[in-house]
Amino acid sequence: MELLKQRILSDGVELGTEILKVDSFLNHQIDIGLIRQIGNEFAVRFQNENITKILTIESSGIAVACVTSLCLGEVPVIFAKKEKASSMTGEYFGAQVKSFTKGTVSMVRVNKSFIGPEDTILIIDDFLAHGEAASGLISIVEQAGAKLAGVAIVIEKEFQGGGKKIKDRGIRLESLAVVCSMAEGKIHFR
Amino acid sequence: MELLKQRILSDGVELGTEILKVDSFLNHQIDIGLIRQIGNEFAVRFQNENITKILTIESSGIAVACVTSLCLGEVPVIFAKKEKASSMTGEYFGAQVKSFTKGTVSMVRVNKSFIGPEDTILIIDDFLAHGEAASGLISIVEQAGAKLAGVAIVIEKEFQGGGKKIKDRGIRLESLAVVCSMAEGKIHFR
Repeated sequence: MELLKQRILSDGVELGTEILKVDSFLNHQIDIGLIRQIGNEFAVRFQNENITKILTIESSGIAVACVTSLCLGEVPVIFAKKEKASSMTGEYFGAQVKSFTKGTVSMVRVNKSFIGPEDTILIIDDFLAHGEAASGLISIVEQAGAKLAGVAIVIEKEFQGGGKKIKDRGIRLESLAVVCSMAEGKIHFR
Repeated sequence: MELLKQRILSDGVELGTEILKVDSFLNHQIDIGLIRQIGNEFAVRFQNENITKILTIESSGIAVACVTSLCLGEVPVIFAKKEKASSMTGEYFGAQVKSFTKGTVSMVRVNKSFIGPEDTILIIDDFLAHGEAASGLISIVEQAGAKLAGVAIVIEKEFQGGGKKIKDRGIRLESLAVVCSMAEGKIHFR
């Protein structure tokens, strides 16, 4: 997606060779016009998959997931929870997920009543790095016995290997911007 | 907002007299059709305020904030962060916020470059209980020297006092459903 790549080049900041900071438009301040175009693009790519629900993980995936839903007939969005709150009664699917930028490991949870074998799920997230969050969400879809239509990612950092892990399992992956390296202070797209 | 009240009565669950569980449509699974109508309603109520940015807090406020932005000319949405990530370089406004349902205290942060004296801010959140999160966000708006147009809340639990604190400071508060009690397993609206 050319518009997104241009925005990454103009407003993204490389912190070393591993971390791409895009908090001015994607995951702290959110440019809703850009997110609308990203949502439209995901909706076009998955429009024939009869998606019944979108699954994401708090917090940065929620904006893209909700706007994509508006373009896909307003299917429900579920965001996996990273912390247990006193309002979380009932039974949950769970998966352990390690955060690359926070250095923490969380048990992410989805209430069992929200996904079942009758569902076709689209997983959405803002970043794909080592594939930890995506693997956790894929595990939850599998535990629920639902069909997985694919994984939709805004920015994939290809050199961290998460994308290969997903495609090696035969799962469809759609990434709108694929960064193949950030060496010497420059961002290179595939 | 009648549609929202009906949905709370049909799908909300009271956990004791303090906690209202609405995770099937608002803050775990999200009914995007309902959120679109909520966003429209907030946009109508604040359409003459020349809002330049919407401020919310991760995670449950993000969906409502983003959909409201789509109805308010796609103004940028900023969500305050609860955890510090390695990608958070630069200077931040900060405020301490206690979570009612999680029993934790977090320092919430907003990058200083995203809000300034030229902004008119609309604060949006899913719940208003004791007013901890709203107070933190109001403090951040004040630290930035921005104008605060008001606070827009999906569900206010009036009996926990957060709404009174905001209105006593002369700040405009718009709550779409105001719960005045949850005694004896019944939800009563004002």
